[in-house]
Amino acid sequence: MIKVAVTGATGYAGGEVLRLLLQHPDAEIGALTAGSSAGSRFGQHQPHLLPLADRVVAETTPENLAGHDVVFLALPHGHSGAVAAQLPDDVLVIDCGADHRLESSDDWAAYYGGEHAGTWPYGMPELITGPGARQRDALPGARRVAVPGCNVTAVTLGLQPAVAAGLVEPTDLVAVLANGFSGAGKALKPHLLASEGLGSASPYGVGGSHRHIPEIAQNLTRAGADEVTISFTPTLVPMARGILATATAKLAAGAGAASVRAAYEEAYGEEPFVHLLPEGQWPTTAATLGANTALVQVAVDERVGRLVTVTAIDNLVKGTAGGAIQSMNLALGLPETTGLTTIGVAP
Amino acid sequence: MIKVAVTGATGYAGGEVLRLLLQHPDAEIGALTAGSSAGSRFGQHQPHLLPLADRVVAETTPENLAGHDVVFLALPHGHSGAVAAQLPDDVLVIDCGADHRLESSDDWAAYYGGEHAGTWPYGMPELITGPGARQRDALPGARRVAVPGCNVTAVTLGLQPAVAAGLVEPTDLVAVLANGFSGAGKALKPHLLASEGLGSASPYGVGGSHRHIPEIAQNLTRAGADEVTISFTPTLVPMARGILATATAKLAAGAGAASVRAAYEEAYGEEPFVHLLPEGQWPTTAATLGANTALVQVAVDERVGRLVTVTAIDNLVKGTAGGAIQSMNLALGLPETTGLTTIGVAP
Amino acid sequence: MIKVAVTGATGYAGGEVLRLLLQHPDAEIGALTAGSSAGSRFGQHQPHLLPLADRVVAETTPENLAGHDVVFLALPHGHSGAVAAQLPDDVLVIDCGADHRLESSDDWAAYYGGEHAGTWPYGMPELITGPGARQRDALPGARRVAVPGCNVTAVTLGLQPAVAAGLVEPTDLVAVLANGFSGAGKALKPHLLASEGLGSASPYGVGGSHRHIPEIAQNLTRAGADEVTISFTPTLVPMARGILATATAKLAAGAGAASVRAAYEEAYGEEPFVHLLPEGQWPTTAATLGANTALVQVAVDERVGRLVTVTAIDNLVKGTAGGAIQSMNLALGLPETTGLTTIGVAP
Amino acid sequence: MIKVAVTGATGYAGGEVLRLLLQHPDAEIGALTAGSSAGSRFGQHQPHLLPLADRVVAETTPENLAGHDVVFLALPHGHSGAVAAQLPDDVLVIDCGADHRLESSDDWAAYYGGEHAGTWPYGMPELITGPGARQRDALPGARRVAVPGCNVTAVTLGLQPAVAAGLVEPTDLVAVLANGFSGAGKALKPHLLASEGLGSASPYGVGGSHRHIPEIAQNLTRAGADEVTISFTPTLVPMARGILATATAKLAAGAGAASVRAAYEEAYGEEPFVHLLPEGQWPTTAATLGANTALVQVAVDERVGRLVTVTAIDNLVKGTAGGAIQSMNLALGLPETTGLTTIGVAP
Repeated sequence: MIKVAVTGATGYAGGEVLRLLLQHPDAEIGALTAGSSAGSRFGQHQPHLLPLADRVVAETTPENLAGHDVVFLALPHGHSGAVAAQLPDDVLVIDCGADHRLESSDDWAAYYGGEHAGTWPYGMPELITGPGARQRDALPGARRVAVPGCNVTAVTLGLQPAVAAGLVEPTDLVAVLANGFSGAGKALKPHLLASEGLGSASPYGVGGSHRHIPEIAQNLTRAGADEVTISFTPTLVPMARGILATATAKLAAGAGAASVRAAYEEAYGEEPFVHLLPEGQWPTTAATLGANTALVQVAVDERVGRLVTVTAIDNLVKGTAGGAIQSMNLALGLPETTGLTTIGVAP
Repeated sequence: MIKVAVTGATGYAGGEVLRLLLQHPDAEIGALTAGSSAGSRFGQHQPHLLPLADRVVAETTPENLAGHDVVFLALPHGHSGAVAAQLPDDVLVIDCGADHRLESSDDWAAYYGGEHAGTWPYGMPELITGPGARQRDALPGARRVAVPGCNVTAVTLGLQPAVAAGLVEPTDLVAVLANGFSGAGKALKPHLLASEGLGSASPYGVGGSHRHIPEIAQNLTRAGADEVTISFTPTLVPMARGILATATAKLAAGAGAASVRAAYEEAYGEEPFVHLLPEGQWPTTAATLGANTALVQVAVDERVGRLVTVTAIDNLVKGTAGGAIQSMNLALGLPETTGLTTIGVAP
Repeated sequence: MIKVAVTGATGYAGGEVLRLLLQHPDAEIGALTAGSSAGSRFGQHQPHLLPLADRVVAETTPENLAGHDVVFLALPHGHSGAVAAQLPDDVLVIDCGADHRLESSDDWAAYYGGEHAGTWPYGMPELITGPGARQRDALPGARRVAVPGCNVTAVTLGLQPAVAAGLVEPTDLVAVLANGFSGAGKALKPHLLASEGLGSASPYGVGGSHRHIPEIAQNLTRAGADEVTISFTPTLVPMARGILATATAKLAAGAGAASVRAAYEEAYGEEPFVHLLPEGQWPTTAATLGANTALVQVAVDERVGRLVTVTAIDNLVKGTAGGAIQSMNLALGLPETTGLTTIGVAP
Repeated sequence: MIKVAVTGATGYAGGEVLRLLLQHPDAEIGALTAGSSAGSRFGQHQPHLLPLADRVVAETTPENLAGHDVVFLALPHGHSGAVAAQLPDDVLVIDCGADHRLESSDDWAAYYGGEHAGTWPYGMPELITGPGARQRDALPGARRVAVPGCNVTAVTLGLQPAVAAGLVEPTDLVAVLANGFSGAGKALKPHLLASEGLGSASPYGVGGSHRHIPEIAQNLTRAGADEVTISFTPTLVPMARGILATATAKLAAGAGAASVRAAYEEAYGEEPFVHLLPEGQWPTTAATLGANTALVQVAVDERVGRLVTVTAIDNLVKGTAGGAIQSMNLALGLPETTGLTTIGVAP
């Protein structure tokens, strides 16, 4: 059995990692650590994880994290580097936060500020990294993995087949997302209250400031774009989970419905967790709830010369914890799909 | 492998049975049948069940149901009897509908109308049927099982330990429930539209007409009550799944907080799927989403001389399909918990 | 014009008072005061009150409250007494908080703690206070008014006609409520986050501890009960506004459907804001959204000998600010319905 | 008093027209007509419109519509022409449906099909029709008015100041909308059920097929564009009301944050119902609920050379019935704002 610790275990990302680990046949859950809630009963924070209810939350210390094969970091950005530095090199450390995703320290400085903690192998197995190549090839044996951002996952999966196949121009991308509230974490902010969120939709991070932008650009560049510019607007809508990403791009000369569909079929035909829907069926986030599935559909709008792609994921699963487990499986040499499901909880 | 067919596969109950069967290690999914949607692609109706997406829905005929070890009936009430009559006696038939739950034909006539299809072994393993006895004892080897109603499950689990221990008077029970919309099925009725349901709460079946009433009475009588009277009011609230049942009863002479808690601990201490929460923690339906869990909490209101119990379940899991699988396991001699989870999907 | 100040103007109760005052033909809005948000632009806190968006929030000081005809207090409990003490006797002070509702200092001490601020005329015009008498008779000329609690309003309106007419026994009442999140105010607590509340139902204040209990008892005693005992359980459900109160009582000897209906028709036939629905139609909270309406329906459950009443209100209107304006109108000698509506915003 | 009839009175658009008329000081509500629900009690269909609850729904016949000064048509598209043809020329007929919005019969044929009923004066008073000119100038004295589509209103208001000022290129517009369910009407379709919609986001009309596209193009052409191409994707999100429209456009050479802001301030500074929010504050649909307000905010994303605009409206008010009343006021020579409010119902 693989012994696994989770830091930030009382938050949403940490809780979701644990939910999936509980259903993973090869994982044994070790330390559950957190900050201010250390010492309290775990069931108080994550009442849905009944098998762990009587555990006690530990402090995030090197001692408590020692003796594990895998450590998941589910911490606010800026905190992972210090914790990881205290862990042995042969421990698999999987960072669900942003600290180790970006390759460019300038991007880090511009979008997050502070010192860049460094770049780790990127935990998006489906990322196209060349003709016939995928990021999953880089993960076996890795002992540090950076889990992608949830919005980044949705937008990258929606656009990369067309970008890689040269069917769209990657310099005038536009993405608008409908986001569930769990993406904002458990932070106590007025606009995250149920009384404010129920019955309302509102945007955030408009105008190019959102921290997921350079990560999307990094991905699509790896997928084949020379240069990426993307207008990116997330919006909060009244659901607990889910991202519906509508991402559009200008069609390149000669691209049409048939070539687009072929590119997506080729890109995702063998993927276990990314599913191109049959023509005429559109993604719903409900169909992905609790599952590691990304549902993708595409349409060519001839009139305006744009490809429109719609991708639905569960932000906490394929967008965070599911991708993290998928990467753990690959890093440890397990079958990639171990402990993960494509079966959603609906309605 | 156990070969399983599901009738009514395109509805909510049928879909949920399939969701659980897909995660059951010993089940192999055979025929998926339905009425008017026969011939269509299954993925169109249940897009969250991705592994079955390319299946075609079959008609509900004896031919299509032949050759299975288990057949689940997820049909509107009044339809199960005829289908079951066509199935061999040695096939395990599990009726998720109401047709075979009631022992009294008079109750059937009064609450449902029409001819009573008969009484099958009742698929609520946790039902107290005597000192130290449970309904699970009646299920091994059964080839016909009637799955309890979802509201019935919530109210019965909330009240039966106190009733069985003689700590409350069962003749002036009051239960009010907050119900998610999936409990109403996929019927196309104006009050079930999202535009109507979002942001609103409303009661239905008020004043003693709800069909789950005689079934609750039947259960609590088996648990030890001489006579049961219950005021029962369900209310639709804006969530897709979940039942939160608040059920109260007058305390019997001498009953108090300590004896009540002891009775619940004794009743549920060994139950795999019914969980008495620690004092001070109250159930939320979110914590049970997708899980076969019932979360129960109790309080003694000395001032008014009433026990107040609150029970949360997922109406489609512990309230329907999870209970059905639990009964299947028992009937077939499998470990009762096979393929079922107590881990919810939250937030 | 009546010059009106509102303290606690950035909260939900204060905001709703202002929403209604903006539509009141005789009111002129003066000072908007608050605590920590003093000095900020009002539109930042209440973006829906566009005509006031450019106002600046003032501190709650005697100077800022001076020169107004009416002052609304929308403060956390325990704070109203001190502010009111600084206001002249001839200013109409309307307390939307709990401080001045209870007649019994013992009840105050038991349920709220601390010193009782005193008892003010009770601002529920429809409260039955004797044969043919209503609380509205006590309000003309009043210069201090205590606005009822929102849950109290729903339960009192649901039960009082039957209690006053002696048709039910008031000693074994049971009420369970479905409550929107705005009833909990803008407090930053984890369980009030949208991520937690969306898709979930949960109880609070179970077992007799809720502070609205003595106020309900006080009202029903005034309506004619010798002694009141009530089991009272509110539950949070995923909506921003609204209370659906299901309240039941044992029928007194001889009471039946006809006498009950007659009592409710007589009690509410002339009431402008309390509406008994036609038989067969049940209240929905959506139909009351934004309106000062209480929708009431009743059923006699002969089988169990109980009256079941269901009442829907908007907790912020009829449950708080609308009742407050109604009382203001009466206190100042204006027509009671001035500036108030029975027209909801639905769907 | 102006005597007003409403056809389609039991639907959402008709109900909202009536909600506003009930609060209009100069309107007297005459016939309420509908199709299959003729003969039934109006309160059964629109329980929130309490003052009309006891009215009886009439059939939509020339006789029933005779004798009114104004007739609102709230019918499915394709039905307005026939009804209007039966009404005298001097009756003000306001069509809330699509039949008379488009100027181009080819567009009608391409997007709706069937014969084009003709073009009526367009009921969007704020539409820029030339330097310093607005569509409101065309409405006084009109006796036929076509009310804009709800999505059209949101996108037009978001983009037209920049288009009119030449600050953006109108040939690569992209708009993605979050839409409440009432926009889909009361049609009984499976994907509109609450069980499906709660907790889910999904797109519809993707890829250029949505019927609102030619109407947006028509408006922006009137506002000054030579040619308009727009990628338009609406998405259903779990709220009853509201549209949040994120609309982006490529900046023209020389355009920047200052010139953009100046253009929006100039365009909307005097508008009673379109409000440019202060910098840093973003629209929420909740703030517009029940109000005739459009909240607009803009951002210039220098990095990608795009203007991003976000507009929030209540689809049933500013998006339908409020715009209709505004047009009625103008047509009849009343002050444009009569009976309309900018005050939303929030939270």
